[in-house]
Amino acid sequence: MQQNTLRQQFLLKDDVTYLNFGAYGACPKPIFEEYQKFQLELENEPTNFMQVKGPEYLKTSRRALADFLRCDADDVVYVTNPSYGVNIIAKSLDLSAGDEVLTTDLEYGACDRTWKYYCKKKGATYVRKKIRFPLASKADFLEQFLGAVTNNTKLIFISHITSATGLRLPVTEICAFAKQRGILTFIDGAHAPGQLEINLSDWRPDMYTGACHKWMLTPKGSSFLYVDARLQHLFDPLLISWGYESLHPSHSQFLDYHQLQGTRDYAAFLTIPAAIRFMHDHNWRAVSIACKETTQANAARFCRLLHATPLCPVTDDFIAQLYSVPILTDNPEKLHDLLYEKYKIQVPVMPQGDKVYLRYSIQAFNSNEDLDRLYAALEELIDPSTGKIAVM
Amino acid sequence: MQQNTLRQQFLLKDDVTYLNFGAYGACPKPIFEEYQKFQLELENEPTNFMQVKGPEYLKTSRRALADFLRCDADDVVYVTNPSYGVNIIAKSLDLSAGDEVLTTDLEYGACDRTWKYYCKKKGATYVRKKIRFPLASKADFLEQFLGAVTNNTKLIFISHITSATGLRLPVTEICAFAKQRGILTFIDGAHAPGQLEINLSDWRPDMYTGACHKWMLTPKGSSFLYVDARLQHLFDPLLISWGYESLHPSHSQFLDYHQLQGTRDYAAFLTIPAAIRFMHDHNWRAVSIACKETTQANAARFCRLLHATPLCPVTDDFIAQLYSVPILTDNPEKLHDLLYEKYKIQVPVMPQGDKVYLRYSIQAFNSNEDLDRLYAALEELIDPSTGKIAVM
Repeated sequence: MQQNTLRQQFLLKDDVTYLNFGAYGACPKPIFEEYQKFQLELENEPTNFMQVKGPEYLKTSRRALADFLRCDADDVVYVTNPSYGVNIIAKSLDLSAGDEVLTTDLEYGACDRTWKYYCKKKGATYVRKKIRFPLASKADFLEQFLGAVTNNTKLIFISHITSATGLRLPVTEICAFAKQRGILTFIDGAHAPGQLEINLSDWRPDMYTGACHKWMLTPKGSSFLYVDARLQHLFDPLLISWGYESLHPSHSQFLDYHQLQGTRDYAAFLTIPAAIRFMHDHNWRAVSIACKETTQANAARFCRLLHATPLCPVTDDFIAQLYSVPILTDNPEKLHDLLYEKYKIQVPVMPQGDKVYLRYSIQAFNSNEDLDRLYAALEELIDPSTGKIAVM
Repeated sequence: MQQNTLRQQFLLKDDVTYLNFGAYGACPKPIFEEYQKFQLELENEPTNFMQVKGPEYLKTSRRALADFLRCDADDVVYVTNPSYGVNIIAKSLDLSAGDEVLTTDLEYGACDRTWKYYCKKKGATYVRKKIRFPLASKADFLEQFLGAVTNNTKLIFISHITSATGLRLPVTEICAFAKQRGILTFIDGAHAPGQLEINLSDWRPDMYTGACHKWMLTPKGSSFLYVDARLQHLFDPLLISWGYESLHPSHSQFLDYHQLQGTRDYAAFLTIPAAIRFMHDHNWRAVSIACKETTQANAARFCRLLHATPLCPVTDDFIAQLYSVPILTDNPEKLHDLLYEKYKIQVPVMPQGDKVYLRYSIQAFNSNEDLDRLYAALEELIDPSTGKIAVM
């Protein structure tokens, strides 16, 4: 691995062991410079940028993104974050009393809140299927999850890679199953593009939202929503603006509705070509595989140290560049702060359901030594007989 | 006026006569540098910025904004743009069949669309009172507009300064009237703060939204929504996220609901203290008055040249730093492009209702010579006998 040179491409502080790429990403210098260059170009002539040049750049950027996701450029729009994408769908989706939205109990809290809110408004039910751990296999997961499908299941909403638990889920199999049963699918890919290869044309989810500002390396506020062309007419804009009943409609109502969202700095959307170029120039597929190997190779020792039963087999089926260990601690927040303040390690400690998870992310700038430092810190803090981590 | 030195504070290209500050603002260098500095700080340690430092900066920035608007810091939240603020209110406001939302026929198109959309959904009526020109006086406007109030009027929505027509409207009088009648008021101040002094504690609108990225000089994507404390509980977030049914509620549900809107780059929100400092250091009240005088002093000659009846008396009651002249042209877009391409003048030509307006904005970087250039260009293009501007 070429961590040492790659580390210098990032803007991260040197004195922090940064194991939380998964939360907010981290933007390499050439992409960040492109970002700020667009912002400066805007200020040089705001009107011309907002009305002429910006929309052209946006089109170029959307095409590059669509190639990356392997979908048609007119089936994808930029949104600020995946929550924005989920809100667009949940607000407008036609759900009636009795309809069920099926998901897992492993979903991201903001998305859970969105579905609960809109299901309640519409009289539908948000079914959070409890997943039993440890998972024996992909087949085990599919059996558990799809066993919760009923005749009332209208939509399956599920993470491609879960947040607190960091698990890759078999969404392609789920999409195929749902298509046969006439159930809509909506994949939350917040953590997927850039970590996993995406092929929307092949998988055919009905809707897919993902972040570019995580594993695709762009600055914050850059994400996307894909909607199958046959369904785009169902979704009103989250923010009604000029694109609704447009005076000058483009060839696509979907773009008019969701791309025209009032004056904003959308430079983060425009950095996709630079991000894709960066990944290409640095042989990102190989970097990502090396990161995954580091992630997987360290899993067992953290589970042993923390007296944890692994959530699943440590294989490519479930684990890419995130690994979550269930831990025993009274105070997740204090543990996070202690690791940060005393050991200068940035690693999230996240509650999900009745468990608490310590999750490490491995990106190009990380090395095995980063995980050694985390291991050593936890060794100092843990009660070796019980596995409990006491924090004063 | 100190235009020459102030001009150098802006990032605008030198070869364009920029008379469209009103549309997207323009950000002075020290404020822009602060903006990009926050973005860099985020990338140095994304987790610590998003979870600790950013929220602290945001609190400081919100307090500075509240001082500027003369309201309580807990009654104002940052939004991306005024349309976002209008969407929050229109989506959640309790409107029933028969209720009327009263406005003028001079409002901004994105807001019109928002109200039409939600009024239709709720069975309420969006009443766009047609304003007769020329306006004789403030009293004339008030008589026309308030004459449209009925027993069904639930909300008055009105611009503080209109967009295409650039008119300052008597919103303080309207708020006072509405308060007596038990009608809610929502002021669209997209163009007001920074151009007019704002005193929300004194005026007591129920809701007020405004842009910081126009006349307050910040980068794009920085705006605010004020809601009277007694009404805040009525409004759900536009984007449901962690702040809805928060696990760690702050002292204010209003802040939790509308400030936590998923991962985004909110550096533009953080530049308010720098913007206020910039205005203070450059004696902005005096700059603004000088700009207003230039705006007003040139009004009559443009009306004469363009065979236009002024919309109103050119006094402080109606005119600040924007002036709109109704013009006769077949093709507003082509006229804009011709002025830009042939004369290097950036000035908007905007349809509103059945009229077309040419609107100039005067900001610190403008001089009377900019208006001379516009005048000379129009003189070349106009048919002096009819006042028509023909564009091939």
